[in-house]
Amino acid sequence: MNQGTIHGLGLGPGDPDLMTVRAERLLRSARHVAYFRKAGKPGQARRIVDGLLRSDVVEFPMEYPVTTEIPLSDPRYNAILSAFYEDCCDHLRALSAAGEDVVVLCEGDPFFYGSFMHLYTRLKDEIPVQVTPAITGMSAAWTATGAPITWGDDVLSVLMGTLPEDVLADHMARADAIVVMKIGRNIDKIRRALKTAGRYDAAWLVEYAAMRGQTVQPLSQAEDKVTPYFSIVVVHGQGRRP
Amino acid sequence: MNQGTIHGLGLGPGDPDLMTVRAERLLRSARHVAYFRKAGKPGQARRIVDGLLRSDVVEFPMEYPVTTEIPLSDPRYNAILSAFYEDCCDHLRALSAAGEDVVVLCEGDPFFYGSFMHLYTRLKDEIPVQVTPAITGMSAAWTATGAPITWGDDVLSVLMGTLPEDVLADHMARADAIVVMKIGRNIDKIRRALKTAGRYDAAWLVEYAAMRGQTVQPLSQAEDKVTPYFSIVVVHGQGRRP
Ligand SMILES: C[S@@+](CC[C@H](N)C(=O)[O-])C[C@H]1O[C@@H](n2cnc3c(N)ncnc32)[C@H](O)[C@@H]1O
Ligand SMILES: C[S@@+](CC[C@H](N)C(=O)[O-])C[C@H]1O[C@@H](n2cnc3c(N)ncnc32)[C@H](O)[C@@H]1O
Repeated sequence: MNQGTIHGLGLGPGDPDLMTVRAERLLRSARHVAYFRKAGKPGQARRIVDGLLRSDVVEFPMEYPVTTEIPLSDPRYNAILSAFYEDCCDHLRALSAAGEDVVVLCEGDPFFYGSFMHLYTRLKDEIPVQVTPAITGMSAAWTATGAPITWGDDVLSVLMGTLPEDVLADHMARADAIVVMKIGRNIDKIRRALKTAGRYDAAWLVEYAAMRGQTVQPLSQAEDKVTPYFSIVVVHGQGRRP
Repeated sequence: MNQGTIHGLGLGPGDPDLMTVRAERLLRSARHVAYFRKAGKPGQARRIVDGLLRSDVVEFPMEYPVTTEIPLSDPRYNAILSAFYEDCCDHLRALSAAGEDVVVLCEGDPFFYGSFMHLYTRLKDEIPVQVTPAITGMSAAWTATGAPITWGDDVLSVLMGTLPEDVLADHMARADAIVVMKIGRNIDKIRRALKTAGRYDAAWLVEYAAMRGQTVQPLSQAEDKVTPYFSIVVVHGQGRRP
């Protein structure tokens, strides 16, 4: 029997209208669909495809064993997550061996800070794996602001809010255009770093880009706001333009 | 009469299968389609939509008056380009005033170093303009390499090959993951900057990502290669992974 293919399928930022033609086709015909989610939550990737799946689809939710309870620095964090990814891979290996294709749902672009990468590196040398790129959350975020992100030879730096404050401030000062992801409880640190770099007044906060509940506002007008997981901070480049 | 809407329609990197569902729908029903191209060339954006347009579509090719004949630093360069964009806008304004919608074809994502931005800023306060994001060329490029671009809290810097060598080298040394666009005749400078930053051996060259003729190879194995306009250099991040 032929091995089945595992698809890392990028779904884009949220609006199903922003999925690719290929993603829509693969989804509508998929017999097996897998996705990550937090325990007890529906999962954002799964929500995007609501109403698009076959009625006889077999779903495989992969529930994260830890998220924020154990600090990233604790060695147990890595060990637990690694065992979790191995378990997920065992299931996918078994389906592939049985000749079944599986579509793994990915928010945004799978190879851009995505969870699927942890399955991909474990599986790619053993079984057929195919990755379909997609629109990133940051593209949806800058589109939502109604202004281009980069002009001419602007330098764009993409930063995670989990970085130390001084590292953030340093990169923010050197780049022309800035994207900050993984905001959440890092928001105060990100604000301070933007201020140190002199970029605070030009920063925009986009929540739920291309999802229901999208908001766009200058970061300085969102003081004291609790920022959801799906938030991105954007500073536009101001480069050369005729 | 209602004003027509000008659409800045992102088409993605090249493969029509990687267009969004929205882009495909807008294209198939479009009565007016505009696109940039170099004089005498078909234009990449126009090529992507071959076979998708209405048979009675009205096409408006916008031919660049200058490209490489006049150096970027020459003040005439800006003046000529600016007049060109104004002419294009006049045409779009007239169509909008006549109640016609126009789809302007954009390679990749319109707000990410795209030419449409020059029309957008001139039109957005006068007539309805809508922008549809799309997969960037760089997403297609890193997907083509078969390896994720960023992990954990990797910093990604996007650089244009048109930047001075020392600026390139400086950013290359500080970032974890690197994307270089606008390669062409800047390739030797880019190679030198990567070497200075100690990143040369980890660099990949992707030509024509998600287009016919796609190639992927270590940059160090592409010595003496003439790189086409649609080329991207990628250095993958190596960040945290359980
Ligand atoms: C683990 S990363 C995944 C990125 C994803 N693979 C992509 O291509 O955008 C999660 C972070 O992406 C950002 N993000 C992704 N999609 C978003 C959206 N539609 N709206 C706002 N933020 C988003 C948030 O900052 C979030 O913390
Ligand atoms: C003016 S920028 C336009 C970028 C586009 N708006 C995007 O979102 O990718 C042109 C540069 O993008 C890069 N590029 C865009 N699409 C590409 C593709 N499919 N393959 C290789 N390079 C591409 C090349 O480096 C090229 O010089």
